[in-house]
Amino acid sequence: MSVSESIKPLFAQIDKLKPEYVNRLAQAVAIPSVSSDESLRPQVFAMADFLKKQLESLGAEDIQLRDLGTQPPPVADPKLQLPPIVLARFGKNPAKKTVLVYGHYDVQPALLEDGWNSDPFKLVEKNGKLYGRGSTDDKGPVMGWLNAVEAHNKAGMELPVNLVCCFEGMEESGSLGLDELVAQEADKYFKGVDTVCISDNYWLGTKKPVLTYGLRGCSYYQITVSGPGADLHSGIFGGVIHEPMTDLFNVMSKLVDTQGNIQIPGVNEMVAPLTEKEEKLYEKIDFDVDELNLASGSNTAIYQDKKNILMHRWRYPSLSLHGIEGAFSGGGAKTVIPAKVVGKFSIRTVPDMDPRKLDEYVFKFCKEKFAELKSPNSFNVELIHDGNYWVSDPFNEAFTAARKATQLVWNVDPDLTREGGSIPITLTFEEQLKTDVLLLPMGKGDDGAHSINEKIDVANYLEGVKTLSAYLHYYAAGKDSE
Amino acid sequence: MSVSESIKPLFAQIDKLKPEYVNRLAQAVAIPSVSSDESLRPQVFAMADFLKKQLESLGAEDIQLRDLGTQPPPVADPKLQLPPIVLARFGKNPAKKTVLVYGHYDVQPALLEDGWNSDPFKLVEKNGKLYGRGSTDDKGPVMGWLNAVEAHNKAGMELPVNLVCCFEGMEESGSLGLDELVAQEADKYFKGVDTVCISDNYWLGTKKPVLTYGLRGCSYYQITVSGPGADLHSGIFGGVIHEPMTDLFNVMSKLVDTQGNIQIPGVNEMVAPLTEKEEKLYEKIDFDVDELNLASGSNTAIYQDKKNILMHRWRYPSLSLHGIEGAFSGGGAKTVIPAKVVGKFSIRTVPDMDPRKLDEYVFKFCKEKFAELKSPNSFNVELIHDGNYWVSDPFNEAFTAARKATQLVWNVDPDLTREGGSIPITLTFEEQLKTDVLLLPMGKGDDGAHSINEKIDVANYLEGVKTLSAYLHYYAAGKDSE
Repeated sequence: MSVSESIKPLFAQIDKLKPEYVNRLAQAVAIPSVSSDESLRPQVFAMADFLKKQLESLGAEDIQLRDLGTQPPPVADPKLQLPPIVLARFGKNPAKKTVLVYGHYDVQPALLEDGWNSDPFKLVEKNGKLYGRGSTDDKGPVMGWLNAVEAHNKAGMELPVNLVCCFEGMEESGSLGLDELVAQEADKYFKGVDTVCISDNYWLGTKKPVLTYGLRGCSYYQITVSGPGADLHSGIFGGVIHEPMTDLFNVMSKLVDTQGNIQIPGVNEMVAPLTEKEEKLYEKIDFDVDELNLASGSNTAIYQDKKNILMHRWRYPSLSLHGIEGAFSGGGAKTVIPAKVVGKFSIRTVPDMDPRKLDEYVFKFCKEKFAELKSPNSFNVELIHDGNYWVSDPFNEAFTAARKATQLVWNVDPDLTREGGSIPITLTFEEQLKTDVLLLPMGKGDDGAHSINEKIDVANYLEGVKTLSAYLHYYAAGKDSE
Repeated sequence: MSVSESIKPLFAQIDKLKPEYVNRLAQAVAIPSVSSDESLRPQVFAMADFLKKQLESLGAEDIQLRDLGTQPPPVADPKLQLPPIVLARFGKNPAKKTVLVYGHYDVQPALLEDGWNSDPFKLVEKNGKLYGRGSTDDKGPVMGWLNAVEAHNKAGMELPVNLVCCFEGMEESGSLGLDELVAQEADKYFKGVDTVCISDNYWLGTKKPVLTYGLRGCSYYQITVSGPGADLHSGIFGGVIHEPMTDLFNVMSKLVDTQGNIQIPGVNEMVAPLTEKEEKLYEKIDFDVDELNLASGSNTAIYQDKKNILMHRWRYPSLSLHGIEGAFSGGGAKTVIPAKVVGKFSIRTVPDMDPRKLDEYVFKFCKEKFAELKSPNSFNVELIHDGNYWVSDPFNEAFTAARKATQLVWNVDPDLTREGGSIPITLTFEEQLKTDVLLLPMGKGDDGAHSINEKIDVANYLEGVKTLSAYLHYYAAGKDSE
């Protein structure tokens, strides 16, 4: 029997369970597990306990709330405990494949006064949408996995794979402790994991489901120019000394042009050439410039056509100037010549850019441009931090299973998307577990994660449970399953 | 009898009065009249009362402590009273010339913990120097005028001119209320004033007395570039929208080169040509690049020769980039694309620059440079505030009198200096009273006004009293006096 046939009773069960699913999400949303608010840290722990009880009631084994110790500075309370990472497994059958699912149970801050139409920590269903902080980021998807297990239990159907859960409580605050835990458990708790599935991003738009196979990396640099021993009065020193700000503006203005073209030799040359196969992927994607303009709140798009917008967001590098540390930054007027200024910029990286070569090109270019000024000021350029890009094969086993699941549930071929930003845990799992990672989003592009009136569509939440379930079945059945 | 002969008994009296003079300054310094510290406002009033008593005891007439009302916001105490402007006159003989002397009795903040070697509000004499807050800025010079009157009284000598005193208590905090009072009293209290003498600046160096005949003006501009409706994530929007920061850096980097040359067409063309007479003035001035390097705490001088340094500080315009409002300005890394950024810069102005024409050239240039970018972002450039330059004829009657006085007291021809910054009250007096203004500094370039361990040399304080006195006598005696 094909997967699409055998899964029908499960889907029927999912439809029946809607009230339980909404109730489960409502209970989760009611716990204000804001990881960035120290005073709400007990609520993050309460949310971990809620998950533990849910997992127990669904029959999970080996549930662990992993203590990560105290939070490193800066913190108001030096004894502030990090919320635990919740580990659990359903099944440990060596004959089955093992899927690790990751999600996070902490949320962004939210106050009614910020402009919410209803209490952010009370789930409200209205016009087919479920409003509440965490509904889409990321409590909805986390509940989605629990819902999928419940559906199997109630339908008397065995899970087709061993399911390993890894849910963290610090994602909105830098995922403190997660990298270390994944590295530590790679050959222990996570041993035997065949693939990782993360549901913590969104459809590109609002109409078509997507599978995400790439993320850009980010290399963040700073340029320091210093000269005078202290900040100086521009009346007394203006015109007679070399001002660090003049030099900084000169160098930083040469990094990128107004069309977004990076001017540093060698950088664009490292970008992987566009293949015909990749180019074709953009053609059928559901997106247009209006969506970009809506998102940016302006008509400032560099490209007006879908293909160029998506390629420049996903597969080409970009360079942004972020600001200056050490110069006047307040309102009004201040006539100081700053003695030491630090300019910040970052480059979004893509295949096949080598981060160390990028550093080399950036340093060389900046130093050359500064040398051309023949300024006696001191100059330094350095990398503050970097994170690599990630690209997966969107035609591998996991993506193929997810595509079939999406087709079955949504009756449409999902768009294959990338994202311009980064989700660092993706690379951590890939590198530490040496497996593929699939990004399988549940919510829509207009869900308002991190914003006011965050929501998830009821349809996405329910069909999402079906998609996650079907994905597990197709993945278990192998590449040629139908 | 020549002035130089007739003044000898007065000078002898001044030498005798040293203990009284030091005591007068010690009493003044002991009152912490910090105008920027609201909690110390009663001390500023106490200082006005001290002045009133001193003036009374010296025989001043028509002493007025002019109420200026409450201080406008921002203030912690909405009923905070402004300290009074102290007016007084010595003599009202229509047969004599009338000299208005201006000074201020408030001081900069000072704390022992800042690094002072002794209590800043206790005058300490050490190695020929008098240490204490206000010793040189500006209590020393204000006491200097009182000392000069006392010397005349005790020597039984009549003041050669009518002396009008105008001492304010808010100079270190924006001179609130002063402009209005000067305008209001131009034809009343200040009626008949022939010239104004201000002793509130410093010798250029430490070896040679100076007379100051020029100040640069300042026009402060801001450029606003905005596009997106809100700050954006550089991962998602980097490479696909026109970033306001890129445009701002592009335009601002074109305003001035690293050698300090203003790149805006028309600006340098407005500068008054250098005459041979003026050029000669620089040759004998006591100054060299080492003093500039010491002051800037670096070896970042654009010019290494005295003449170019002084000319570029005093008689050529300069352009400084001050900072950006709206962009990331903290430590570390933040990957935001700011939606709206405001770049600040100012131009120091000199004769014969027309401030309205300058605005026009600045606006035109910035708009053209932005237009060249073909960016869809919004752009605006505007003037925030301006103050005009000031230049006097250093060979007029007042300067001639001051030069003779300096030669008599210091046995040296004073250097004729300008300053790169501005002292707005200079222009106010000139414009409102329609008289010349003379800047006749008492302290040295290393006195540390606004800094820790502020001092005035005992020699400067005593010889300063002689200089002020001799100036009055030479001025009264006319241009050809000896």
